[in-house]
Amino acid sequence: MPDRYAPEELNRMKPDEFRRIVRKGEWTKETADACWGYGQANLIALPKEYAYEFLLLSHFNPRPLPVLDVTEPGDPHPRRVTRDADLGTDLPKYRVFVEGKIVAEPTDVSEYWRDDLVAFVIGCSWGFVWAIKDANVKYRSLGDYTTKIKLSPSGRLRGYMVCSCRAFPSSEDAVRAIQITSRHRAFHGPPVHIGDPKLIGVERIGEPDAFIPPWPTPPPEPYEIVAFWGCGITAQNVVMESKIPYAISHYPGHMLVLDKRVEEMALF
Amino acid sequence: MPDRYAPEELNRMKPDEFRRIVRKGEWTKETADACWGYGQANLIALPKEYAYEFLLLSHFNPRPLPVLDVTEPGDPHPRRVTRDADLGTDLPKYRVFVEGKIVAEPTDVSEYWRDDLVAFVIGCSWGFVWAIKDANVKYRSLGDYTTKIKLSPSGRLRGYMVCSCRAFPSSEDAVRAIQITSRHRAFHGPPVHIGDPKLIGVERIGEPDAFIPPWPTPPPEPYEIVAFWGCGITAQNVVMESKIPYAISHYPGHMLVLDKRVEEMALF
Repeated sequence: MPDRYAPEELNRMKPDEFRRIVRKGEWTKETADACWGYGQANLIALPKEYAYEFLLLSHFNPRPLPVLDVTEPGDPHPRRVTRDADLGTDLPKYRVFVEGKIVAEPTDVSEYWRDDLVAFVIGCSWGFVWAIKDANVKYRSLGDYTTKIKLSPSGRLRGYMVCSCRAFPSSEDAVRAIQITSRHRAFHGPPVHIGDPKLIGVERIGEPDAFIPPWPTPPPEPYEIVAFWGCGITAQNVVMESKIPYAISHYPGHMLVLDKRVEEMALF
Repeated sequence: MPDRYAPEELNRMKPDEFRRIVRKGEWTKETADACWGYGQANLIALPKEYAYEFLLLSHFNPRPLPVLDVTEPGDPHPRRVTRDADLGTDLPKYRVFVEGKIVAEPTDVSEYWRDDLVAFVIGCSWGFVWAIKDANVKYRSLGDYTTKIKLSPSGRLRGYMVCSCRAFPSSEDAVRAIQITSRHRAFHGPPVHIGDPKLIGVERIGEPDAFIPPWPTPPPEPYEIVAFWGCGITAQNVVMESKIPYAISHYPGHMLVLDKRVEEMALF
């Protein structure tokens, strides 16, 4: 019977332990509680012929797309950030795209992996969240939103930035979060927007479209300060907007847990 | 008659003004004094078929190779960091490599440019030097050295890190320089080594091999603290070690001056 681990149990697990239960199909849900203090990452695997354009795209859009590892074609092992993870099995849930459309959302993509796929491992804000929590910053997470912020394009690739959104009960909390996340550029760095969500094209704050968390996300109160961070789901938007022939990604919120501590990767 | 500008004149020039005198052949020497406060950059132009491997190499060796701009094949205009610079004419001196060997060192490479060349513009420590000077940190520059630090390889590309070396008269100056340069990752960031040069394979400190400055570089005194920063000449070492069929680079010390202020690019 899957998914019967309590948040505290997930918190205390080591990354290899957590990835093992994921691999066995014993955890198929969000990774928000997994492995306190360790980095988490997005996956996007693309045909080799798109690898250069994607790497350039990420280089010039580093807030949503901080690349932590890139594999050789066909190789599902990101060895720069994990000892032994298999990208085909060690994330709780995936998406498979054909011509920019989602065709499957399986919990294992071993059979979907191809010899020409280059995998990009991209930092996730659920990495820096440990640092915010360690500092006792108060906030609540409002999920992920597709914004109207256009990416700087690269060759055939274009798209809009997806952002994670957090609301803070005071300026002090918001400023502290900006300071802390600035050190964590491997996990999206500082916010890309603070204040009115409409200014970046988010019309219905509180109703996330890109990642709907398993917790409630009521819209901000007037006293709350709202901030948006680049989010790795942006890569999935690029797959869809650019109609890339084939791609595999994680399912939003269902991340790869790294063997690297977030602090170990601060300001690298 | 070229090269008759005084350091103070060069200091005060705006980047487009300086690039114009370079283009006209009126300045063919080092750019150390040019355009106080503006970024300076290395050039490496490679055939398109090496672009992905080189971009990956730079991504995983960010200290020596912080990429600031990448052009489309054949395009010599780095528009992300300059308004109108032409990479074929706006650096005071160049190197042309065939099969990893230097075949020419001209002051203009318009005739050597090829339609398949992708140009990488890479930050230079002569950017962060303005920030160190602004902070009144005392130091002297000992030139650039080929070290025994192996790069993390990428496909066919490998090489050794070239480092710039500076000596500080006190711990306070050295620590302040580390703090300041840490903010300037676009211009190599913090040092990669502090202390005994022999530990990174530099046997004859004071006798630089990769860039010999036009000023004296006596070896450090016992009280001086020696620090090494990644240097963009590393890209030329990669061209030579990997025997890349064709490449164009700047001549060491003869850099591209950017339209970006160093401070504008801090911690981006």
